[in-house]
Amino acid sequence: MPIKLICLDADDTLWHNMRHFDVAERALLDMLAPFSDAQIAHATLETVEIRNLKLYGYGAKSFTLSMIETAIELAGDDLPPSAVRQILEAGRDLLAHPVELLDGVGDTIEALAGQGALALITKGDLLHQEAKLAASGLGGHFASVEIVSDKRPDTFRRLFARHDVPPEEAIMAGDSLRSDILPALEAGAWAAYVPHDLVWSHEQAAEPVDRPRYRKLAALGELPALVESLRT
Amino acid sequence: MPIKLICLDADDTLWHNMRHFDVAERALLDMLAPFSDAQIAHATLETVEIRNLKLYGYGAKSFTLSMIETAIELAGDDLPPSAVRQILEAGRDLLAHPVELLDGVGDTIEALAGQGALALITKGDLLHQEAKLAASGLGGHFASVEIVSDKRPDTFRRLFARHDVPPEEAIMAGDSLRSDILPALEAGAWAAYVPHDLVWSHEQAAEPVDRPRYRKLAALGELPALVESLRT
Repeated sequence: MPIKLICLDADDTLWHNMRHFDVAERALLDMLAPFSDAQIAHATLETVEIRNLKLYGYGAKSFTLSMIETAIELAGDDLPPSAVRQILEAGRDLLAHPVELLDGVGDTIEALAGQGALALITKGDLLHQEAKLAASGLGGHFASVEIVSDKRPDTFRRLFARHDVPPEEAIMAGDSLRSDILPALEAGAWAAYVPHDLVWSHEQAAEPVDRPRYRKLAALGELPALVESLRT
Repeated sequence: MPIKLICLDADDTLWHNMRHFDVAERALLDMLAPFSDAQIAHATLETVEIRNLKLYGYGAKSFTLSMIETAIELAGDDLPPSAVRQILEAGRDLLAHPVELLDGVGDTIEALAGQGALALITKGDLLHQEAKLAASGLGGHFASVEIVSDKRPDTFRRLFARHDVPPEEAIMAGDSLRSDILPALEAGAWAAYVPHDLVWSHEQAAEPVDRPRYRKLAALGELPALVESLRT
């Protein structure tokens, strides 16, 4: 069965993302050093982020608000306003940093575009994800771009239906087991897990090693060969 | 020419929105009273919001970040962390308030759904707009829901194309001249302006009184009759 629809995650699949969040978090931990041990500050930020997820959703603005909340929680009335100003600046840096493609992604996308229709599917801030795609120069290769509040099996079912492709002729590639791989498999598609060395703990999950349509790749550059091999 | 596609804005067209932003802003101005005159604080918030729009986009999270920035700008190092905590709470209230439909909207939507396909098109936070639509109970009436980073003529052209409807068989109704009415007219569609008593200054524009497909309604409840009148 040939693959007709190739779906791709964006952050840390096509371009660097987590490293920028890590820079912002490290600056926050340094700033909070007079008030809190770094490990406790890290754990507090994580707790605040997860607690806010249902209300804020994903993305850099949510992260900025959660960093401010963490600073207030840990420093209390001793928090200097300059620290809040610095967190706002770190948040703006997160939204404005240049887009750096992962190694070889430009060539890989060109190869994949010759194999099937490409669909980008990503979580995060609407405007920010659009801006990153525009800055990446890859936009022209994608038949569809979906910026969604969450990736669930139904999100993928609707995507496949919109492209009029049965799930077994679609593949999803990304770096998050929780958001890219498990829901795509659940929707009946193939799924190629391309681990990234930085991943938010929230996105981790057990590898679905017993699922026949699950594959693990060392890099996105291996995806064209996988797609080719599924053709026969 | 019958109208086949009826496009609707959401905030302050279907449900109350600005009144919640106004409550949050009034609380901010009260909080900043020891540091700044209310008029100056209002003007500063507006400047900060517009300055951040390109990076943050629309919505309650952007507004919360801009409120924090305004507070720091006006109170400087005298800003108590408790004020930042209160702004975060006001922002969370904005995201969590119950959805209250404008008068008669439930009946109007039912009537419109019998006249053509309904498309919701709204700016703002992805997750928040989805949550409001779900809470409104109106979701089932819409053939499509688009949450976009901005409404431009091309946004409407793509929407009409996706529904396979020529622009002259589509109408857009909303409370923003800038975001709902002008770009829809520019794309060739009919546009029904339904003014709301609260509107953000950024969304204001001159009324396009010389455009033949422009109409002004006193309430959304007049839209079914307008759509009916265009049928002949």
